Amino acid sequence: MTQQRMPTREGVLEAAAKIAEIVPPTPLLPIEIHGVKCWVKAEMLQPVGAFKIRGAWWRLVNLTKEEQSRGVVAVSSGNHAQGVAWAARRLGISATIVMPRNAPRVKLDTTRALGAKVVLYERPGEDRDEVAARLIGDTGATLVHAFADPWVIEGQGSAGIEAEAQLGRTPSRFIVCCGGGGLTAGLSLACPESAIHLVEPVGWDMVGQALATGEIVRVADVPPKTICDALQPDATKPLNLAILKDRVEPGVTVTDDEVLAAQRFAFAKLRLVAEPGGAAALAAALAGKVPVDEGTVIMMTGGNVDPQAYAATIAEA
Amino acid sequence: MTQQRMPTREGVLEAAAKIAEIVPPTPLLPIEIHGVKCWVKAEMLQPVGAFKIRGAWWRLVNLTKEEQSRGVVAVSSGNHAQGVAWAARRLGISATIVMPRNAPRVKLDTTRALGAKVVLYERPGEDRDEVAARLIGDTGATLVHAFADPWVIEGQGSAGIEAEAQLGRTPSRFIVCCGGGGLTAGLSLACPESAIHLVEPVGWDMVGQALATGEIVRVADVPPKTICDALQPDATKPLNLAILKDRVEPGVTVTDDEVLAAQRFAFAKLRLVAEPGGAAALAAALAGKVPVDEGTVIMMTGGNVDPQAYAATIAEA
Repeated sequence: MTQQRMPTREGVLEAAAKIAEIVPPTPLLPIEIHGVKCWVKAEMLQPVGAFKIRGAWWRLVNLTKEEQSRGVVAVSSGNHAQGVAWAARRLGISATIVMPRNAPRVKLDTTRALGAKVVLYERPGEDRDEVAARLIGDTGATLVHAFADPWVIEGQGSAGIEAEAQLGRTPSRFIVCCGGGGLTAGLSLACPESAIHLVEPVGWDMVGQALATGEIVRVADVPPKTICDALQPDATKPLNLAILKDRVEPGVTVTDDEVLAAQRFAFAKLRLVAEPGGAAALAAALAGKVPVDEGTVIMMTGGNVDPQAYAATIAEA
Repeated sequence: MTQQRMPTREGVLEAAAKIAEIVPPTPLLPIEIHGVKCWVKAEMLQPVGAFKIRGAWWRLVNLTKEEQSRGVVAVSSGNHAQGVAWAARRLGISATIVMPRNAPRVKLDTTRALGAKVVLYERPGEDRDEVAARLIGDTGATLVHAFADPWVIEGQGSAGIEAEAQLGRTPSRFIVCCGGGGLTAGLSLACPESAIHLVEPVGWDMVGQALATGEIVRVADVPPKTICDALQPDATKPLNLAILKDRVEPGVTVTDDEVLAAQRFAFAKLRLVAEPGGAAALAAALAGKVPVDEGTVIMMTGGNVDPQAYAATIAEA
C-alpha cells in the first residue's frame, strides 16, 4: 500500500465547507447531567441516522473521475455502509459494502435500499478485510476505510467545526463514542484546544489499549459480547494511533447496562432515538466516568436500531 | 371577562425575538414523503419536549410584576402544563396546573418535577375550567389558557418565524397538529402567505367542525377514544375561530392507526421520539390526506410519551 497522507486541520475545514453544501448542521442541544449544563451533538439526525455521512462524502468527492468510474468498496457493520451508500448514490458511483451477517437488520435493509450491493461475511470468523481485498482485486474499486483514511477522518472532524460554531467558542471537551478512532481523530484535528475523551465498550477498547501500550492491539479471540454493534473494530490502525497518541485523554469503557441507561435517558429527556453505540459517550458522562462542564459536547453518533431491540430497552425503564 | 386583545403578526415577531433569547431554534429537518422532499419542524426537541414553552414564556414575561407575584394557573393534559411550569420556575413565579387524572404518567411527573403544584380532575366528567376558576378566585392568580390567549397564540407562532428563517423563504404550507387551535392560529399570523392545514384526531375535530359550521362546537358527550392525549379540547374558543376562519384550509382528521404509523416513521426515518398527538400532522401527510411539496413544513409538536406505550408502538412495526 502506498504511504497515506496525514489528514490536517485545513482538510477538516475544507471538508466542513463541502459537507455544509449538502446537509444542514445537526443540532447542538442543551442538556443537564448531574446538575451541570452541557451539550449534545445529535448526529443521529443526519439523513442516514449517523455521522458517517460526513467522512463518506468528503472521501467520495475527492476521488478522481476515473476512480469514481471503478466504484468503491467499504467494510462496515452498518453506519459507514449507509454513509458510503448514500454518498455514492448521490454521486452516481457504484458501491459494494462488506457487512457482517449479524449486523442489525435495519442497517442491512437500509444499505440495500440506498442502492449499494451488500456482500455478507461471518463475524466472528471470516476476515472482512480479505473479503474486501478480493472485491477490489476483481474491480479496481477504491476502498473507503471506515476510520483509517485521511479524507474520512477529515470529514468526520467537520462535526467539531460545526459544534464550535454553534457553541460560539471552542468546546472545553468532546466526549466521543469510539469504534476504530475515525471520529475521535477528526475531532482532535478540528478543535486542537479541546480535551478529547473517547468511550468504548468493555472488552472492545482497542483504541484505549493502543493508547495505553503505544501499540496496535487486536481484540481478544473470544471477546465479550456488547450491544454496541457499531463499536466493534478488530483493532485500530497506525494512522489513527499516530493522530491520537499524546493528544487525547486515556480511554474510558462502558458496560451494556450503562449504555442502556443512556439510551433511556436520550428517549425520556431528549426525545432522541439513540442506538447502543451512539449512546456510549452519553453513558460515560451519566456514569460519572468522564468530567462534564458547561463547554462539554457529548457526541451522539447514531440512531439506527432494530425496533424490537429498542422497544425492549425502553420498556424496561 | 374583559374583552381580549387580538394577537397580531407584530406580536408574533416580538415573541420570536424574546423566545430566541432563551432557547435555540428547533431543527428543521429534511424528509421525503412519497418521493417528495419536505420539512419537519422538530418541536419535541424543546427543553420540555413540546412547542408549548413558546406561548408560556411569552405570556409569563408579559405579566406585570404584581400579576407575577400572585402566580399563574393553567389547565392542561400535560405539554402546556410543562411549558408553563418551566417558564414559571425560570421567572420565579408560582404555578398551579389543573391536569386530568388520566394524563400520561410521564407528563404528571415532569410537571411536578418542574416545581408546579398539580391539581387533578376527572376526564371525562369534571369541568376543568370550573376547577381552574375556583383556584383563581382563591388566589387572584392569572389564568394562562392553553390556546385562547393572545400572548400564547403569538408565542406559538414564533415557530413559524423560525421555520421561515431556516427555510430561507415563506413555507408554501404548514401541516399542524391541532388541539384547541393555539399553534394553528399563531402560525396563521406568523406566515400570512402560507397555506395552513390543521390535523385533529377523529371525533376530536373541534376546530375543523367550528370552521365548517362557523360556530363553536362542543365535543360529543361520549367521544371516541383517541391515543392523542394532547389533542382533546372540549371545544375551540371564539378567539381562535376568529383568527382561523376564512384563513385556513378545511380541517383534516386522522385515525389512531395513522398516528401509530407516523410515530413509527419518526422512529425509523428521523430517529425522533414523537408522542401520538405530536405525530398527527405527519400522519395526515403520510396518509395522503394533505398535499405536500418542497416548501411544506410539517409540525411535530411533542415527544412526551410513556415508555411502555411507546415500546408497544415501536415493537409492532
